[in-house]
Amino acid sequence: MSGLPVRPELVGEVPYGAPQLDVPYCLNVNENPYPPSDKVAAEIGAAAAAAAKSMNRYPERDAVELRADLAAYLGHGLTADQVWAANGSNEVMLHVLMAFGGPGRTVLSFAPTYSMYPEYARDSHTGWTTFPRRDDFTIDPVTAVQAVTEQRPDVILIASPNNPSGTAVDLDTIRAIVDAAPGVVVVDEAYYEFVRPGTPSALELLPDYPRLAVTRTMSKAFAFAGGRLGYLAASREFVDALRVVRLPYHLSAVTQAVARVALANADELLAAVDKLRANRDALAAWLADQGLQAADSDANFVLFGRFADRQAVWQALLDKGVLIRVVGPEGWLRVSAGTDEEMAAFKAALTSVLGTEKGRLL
Amino acid sequence: MSGLPVRPELVGEVPYGAPQLDVPYCLNVNENPYPPSDKVAAEIGAAAAAAAKSMNRYPERDAVELRADLAAYLGHGLTADQVWAANGSNEVMLHVLMAFGGPGRTVLSFAPTYSMYPEYARDSHTGWTTFPRRDDFTIDPVTAVQAVTEQRPDVILIASPNNPSGTAVDLDTIRAIVDAAPGVVVVDEAYYEFVRPGTPSALELLPDYPRLAVTRTMSKAFAFAGGRLGYLAASREFVDALRVVRLPYHLSAVTQAVARVALANADELLAAVDKLRANRDALAAWLADQGLQAADSDANFVLFGRFADRQAVWQALLDKGVLIRVVGPEGWLRVSAGTDEEMAAFKAALTSVLGTEKGRLL
Repeated sequence: MSGLPVRPELVGEVPYGAPQLDVPYCLNVNENPYPPSDKVAAEIGAAAAAAAKSMNRYPERDAVELRADLAAYLGHGLTADQVWAANGSNEVMLHVLMAFGGPGRTVLSFAPTYSMYPEYARDSHTGWTTFPRRDDFTIDPVTAVQAVTEQRPDVILIASPNNPSGTAVDLDTIRAIVDAAPGVVVVDEAYYEFVRPGTPSALELLPDYPRLAVTRTMSKAFAFAGGRLGYLAASREFVDALRVVRLPYHLSAVTQAVARVALANADELLAAVDKLRANRDALAAWLADQGLQAADSDANFVLFGRFADRQAVWQALLDKGVLIRVVGPEGWLRVSAGTDEEMAAFKAALTSVLGTEKGRLL
Repeated sequence: MSGLPVRPELVGEVPYGAPQLDVPYCLNVNENPYPPSDKVAAEIGAAAAAAAKSMNRYPERDAVELRADLAAYLGHGLTADQVWAANGSNEVMLHVLMAFGGPGRTVLSFAPTYSMYPEYARDSHTGWTTFPRRDDFTIDPVTAVQAVTEQRPDVILIASPNNPSGTAVDLDTIRAIVDAAPGVVVVDEAYYEFVRPGTPSALELLPDYPRLAVTRTMSKAFAFAGGRLGYLAASREFVDALRVVRLPYHLSAVTQAVARVALANADELLAAVDKLRANRDALAAWLADQGLQAADSDANFVLFGRFADRQAVWQALLDKGVLIRVVGPEGWLRVSAGTDEEMAAFKAALTSVLGTEKGRLL
């Protein structure tokens, strides 16, 4: 791009994203490994064919039926006008920063956290700042509230469960942060369906806080990453602000129709969540048995380490056909919870990699 | 949104978009009135069903196959890496302003022009400025070049054919503007397929200008508004800059698959273009016969007027089941070219409206 007048902060930047490689075991982007059944795939096809019959017309711009379905799925008494939807939760997050962030404003999050957040800030020209989590990746409510009170960020993003650590944030901490926040607070619950029993959702707090929003996605537990549907629940006023900055017709007629089919088949699509949760717990226990650290996880992945040369471990696993992710603080790697076969392949590969060079790699 | 800390420039704003009303004759958003055949709808369904089988996985992030198909459709020797695609040309335009506009930069266009342009500028925090077209909606190359030289905008948007006037901009004028431009120039050819014979595309200029881009959409001639697929052709460097600011996985697996089906059926989907072009010309001639002004149009709509109270005319037509658009300079209205039945309904309604109150309305 050297010859073109791109914005100065973009010079030398590369497109965001994990490598998309054709390997036997993809455990790098926290997908649900179980594809939809033939029955659901056929229903998706039928819905797309039906939508195609009026494809010459623009889609319903407010996606009201889809938002009503999402509200019904979330429960908590939510209605369509308290729910927003977009092409992935990353577009939802961009809408939030377009409405509440922007030049002269700042967004704060708790690091280490999701590596896309600074990209959203950059893309919306919002100042990006972080406050550190504890060594165990939890958030200390006392110092967090101090930081919020002093820094007065316009937007606060709290990933819970956090990516890449898998850490759920307790509601008392979220409540303390929202009470102190001068602006809006977004709890990113992309991985909420994978939490351990008894872990409440920040949806419970919405009635008390019109400046709070909770984001979700159909990309993870819902096994719908290819469909690109993220959503948000908040007060009606919060959603109305997002409607002002969205591009008109941002959700295609097909996206709306197909996502509604997925929601109607939630029981089937979410059926693997218990299995993945069990495999995640077994994975974390196994990693600990190998003498590694494994962060407590309420998501469908485990952050583990620490390695003297994590890039070398990642490459050695990839050479054995197992793709995981180099992400998080120096020394850590992240692996998605997958099928029994995928877990066996990952364990065999890591055992082999560590077996010969454990001393050098750890 | 009164209680929420939205950005100051958004306070009091409402979501962009023409009213979506359920009326017999929708001639307000320049859709192609002919839906896909049952055969194409079935192929779209089959493609979505096939994509659904791996819906648990993220889509191919660079949409390389779709971009290759779009390049093949455009011709002019273009290849996939010189083509970009997004959810509608409005997302393409946002990517352009995120890469080349933004705070401290300005975008210039030639007014009256597409009413979304200032929204893109607002959403990307780019300064918005316009230079006037002549009374016949053409661009005077001499004064346009002067304005560009003096104002030095970072981005120039030229709609050709222009919306809402339908005016195509000749290539000599575009060339003069690009030669004078210090930044990038985007020619928005959303309606290009409807131009009158012998009107060249700005695609011809791309080999000479790495800072020039041409945008297109499948929403208009392609009868694919519900599918939301806009695209852009430019130099590889230009496209690479857009790749940096796009949100990852912005195009769903279904969107990619379904758009490829539409492109494979271009002959059928574009078959109505000649008919719509003929109906547009007949519509403009008929409007002139009624003693109205009708702008020369190379698009699938006609801007006509001028009315002392255009809102009253719009409402009176709507009361008769004909929805058109209040857009453009004061006194003008825009009507889409449609089927013979739609054109007859519009003419009958306008005749009736003007018949009783022509003196008051004109």
